[in-house]
Amino acid sequence: MIPSPYLLYLGSSTDELSVKTSRGIAVWRPEVAVGEYRNPDCTVTLGLEHLDFAEAYARGARTLVLGVANAGGIMGPSAKADVLAALAAGLNVAAGLHDRLNDHPDLVAAAEEAGLQLFDVREPPKGLVVGNGRPRAGKRLLTVGTDCSVGKMYTTLALERELHARGLPADFRATGQTGILIAQSGVPIDAVVADFISGAAEMISPARTDDGWDLIEGQGSLFHPSFAGVSLGLLHGAQAEALVMCHEYGRPSMRGLSYRTLPDIGECMEANLAAAALTRPGARFVGIGLNTSRLSDEDALRVCAEAEDKYGLPCQDPLRMGVNRIIDRLLECDATSVAA
Amino acid sequence: MIPSPYLLYLGSSTDELSVKTSRGIAVWRPEVAVGEYRNPDCTVTLGLEHLDFAEAYARGARTLVLGVANAGGIMGPSAKADVLAALAAGLNVAAGLHDRLNDHPDLVAAAEEAGLQLFDVREPPKGLVVGNGRPRAGKRLLTVGTDCSVGKMYTTLALERELHARGLPADFRATGQTGILIAQSGVPIDAVVADFISGAAEMISPARTDDGWDLIEGQGSLFHPSFAGVSLGLLHGAQAEALVMCHEYGRPSMRGLSYRTLPDIGECMEANLAAAALTRPGARFVGIGLNTSRLSDEDALRVCAEAEDKYGLPCQDPLRMGVNRIIDRLLECDATSVAA
Repeated sequence: MIPSPYLLYLGSSTDELSVKTSRGIAVWRPEVAVGEYRNPDCTVTLGLEHLDFAEAYARGARTLVLGVANAGGIMGPSAKADVLAALAAGLNVAAGLHDRLNDHPDLVAAAEEAGLQLFDVREPPKGLVVGNGRPRAGKRLLTVGTDCSVGKMYTTLALERELHARGLPADFRATGQTGILIAQSGVPIDAVVADFISGAAEMISPARTDDGWDLIEGQGSLFHPSFAGVSLGLLHGAQAEALVMCHEYGRPSMRGLSYRTLPDIGECMEANLAAAALTRPGARFVGIGLNTSRLSDEDALRVCAEAEDKYGLPCQDPLRMGVNRIIDRLLECDATSVAA
Repeated sequence: MIPSPYLLYLGSSTDELSVKTSRGIAVWRPEVAVGEYRNPDCTVTLGLEHLDFAEAYARGARTLVLGVANAGGIMGPSAKADVLAALAAGLNVAAGLHDRLNDHPDLVAAAEEAGLQLFDVREPPKGLVVGNGRPRAGKRLLTVGTDCSVGKMYTTLALERELHARGLPADFRATGQTGILIAQSGVPIDAVVADFISGAAEMISPARTDDGWDLIEGQGSLFHPSFAGVSLGLLHGAQAEALVMCHEYGRPSMRGLSYRTLPDIGECMEANLAAAALTRPGARFVGIGLNTSRLSDEDALRVCAEAEDKYGLPCQDPLRMGVNRIIDRLLECDATSVAA
C-alpha cells in the first residue's frame, strides 16, 4: 500500500499528455491529493495548490507521486534531484517510470537512511503464486476490450464512483501502473512472469463476503496478437460474474499494429464469454463502455443507442454520459442471480 | 546456443523420474551425449559410458548438463562441488534447476576465471520484444493440449524424427527447460514477462524460406486455469498452419487441480482453432497424439481408432506407434495448400 496523501509531481512538464497519470489521480482520488509540485518551467497545472516538499509534508502528504511520462520513461537529472529533496523532506516516492527508482543506488541509500520507501509500480510484487481457478466468494466485475487503451481503466473507475454514489461498497482493483497509483495498490499484470498471470488476478481480488463489488481493471484484448495471453490470464483469474465491454468508436487500427483492424464488438463479447466460462460459468455482459471521443454529442448518443439495440445492453460513454444505466443493469442481474 | 557435445550428469540419483531430462537428451539427441557422470551412490544409468570430467573433455564434451531434478530443484553441496570440478576440467555447465547456477557467486567467479559459461535454461533471454502478429514466411506446426504434461514435447520430437527420417528439413523449437536442453536453444516461455509471450514465440520460430518445418513445443492448455494465458500467447506467436492435439487417455483431473476434469478433445480443438485464426487464418489440425500409457496394447489401438473415426484425424500414441500417419496427413495438407 502506497502511503497517502500524495503530492503530485508535475516537474517541468509542458504538455497535457505527459501528466496524464497525475491528472488521473487528481480526478479519481481528489481526497488523496494535497497539492501539486511544479518547477518554474512547468507550463501545465492540475489546478491544485502548488506546494514545495516541506509544505506538503506539513499538510500531511506522505508520498511524492511522479505521475509524469517523458520520452523513454527516463528520470532526468532535475527530476532525480527533486526525488532526493522530497526524501530529505520526509516523503516516500512512487513512480511508474521504466527507469526504476530502485535501480538508482543513491536514491535507495537516501530512502534507507530516511526510513522511507521507493515504490516502482511497474515492478510486480514478490511471492506471486500460480492461479488455481477454484471458485471463490465475492461479487466481481471485469472490464474487457476490443483493444488496448480504449478506456477500460476510466470505465472501471466510473463504475466504482457510481456504486459509491449509491452507497454500495465497491473497490477498484488496479492492474496497470496508473491504476495502481490511483488505487494505492494493485499488480502490474503485464509485468508478471507468464506463469503467474491468473494467480496475480486471483491475488488482487481475493474472496470477499461483505456483499461489496471488486471492480477489476482489464488489460489488452483477447484480439490483440501482442497481449492476448495477458487478457486471458486476467479473465480466468478474475472469475468475474459481470463483464463490461470497452471499445473506442471509429478507431482505425489495433494499438501499435497499424495493419490490423479491430474486432467486431459482438465477436469480442462472444470470445470473452466462452473463455470466462472456464472459471466462472454463467458470466455475462452488463454493458458497453463506448469511447466516443471522435464524435459530436449528437452522433455519440446515436451510436450508443444503436449499440444498445444491437446487443441488448446499456451502452454509455463513461466520460460523456456516466455509467448509471450500466450499474442499473449490473444490480438487476445481481438481484436476479441472488433470487435464482 | 549451449555448446555440445554434452556430458549428462546423473549425480547421486536413485530414481528414474529424477533423471527424466537427461534421459530425454539421450533418447532424442544421442549424437550430442558423449557419456554420463554418476557418483558412487547413483543407482540409475542411461546406458552410456561413465566418464569423469577430464575424460569427457578429452572425448570432446563441452558442456556438463545437470538434467536431474530433486525436491525443490535445489543444488546440494555434492552437486555444487561437481559443478566446480567440471568447470575446472574445462566444461561449460547447463541446468534447469530452480536454484540458478548464476545465483551462486562462487560458481559465477569460477566460470569467469575459466572463460566458460553457466546456462540456466529456466531464465528467459534478455532483449525479448512484444509480438507483432505480422504474417511471416515458413511452415510451422504447434502441439497443443487438453492439459499440461500430456506429451506435447515428446510428440513434437517424434514429429521431427519422422520428418528427418523422410529426408525433410525440420527443427524442434523448444519452449520448456527439458526441450531447451535437448534442442540446445529455445525460450522457457512460461518464465518470460507476460507482455512478451507471443513475442518470444515469434522469436524462436522466425521467418524461414528453406521449405523446412519449425515444430514448436506447446505448453499448458487453453483449458488450464493456471496457465491458459501462456498457451494463448504461444498459439498467437507461433502462427502455425498445422496443429496437433495432445491428450492423455483416462487422466482423471487437470494437472495440479484435482477438483477439475479435463476438457473434451473436440471442444479443445475448436477453441484452439478459433484463437489461432487471429494470427493464422486457415490453421488446421493434422492429427492427435494420444498418450495411452494407462492402457493395454489392444485397448490403445482401439481408443486411437475410435478417436480417428470421431474427429476424422490420424490418432497415434507417439511412444507406442510413432507418428507416421500424422506426418502423412501433414504433408498431404501442405501439398493441398501449396496447390491451392
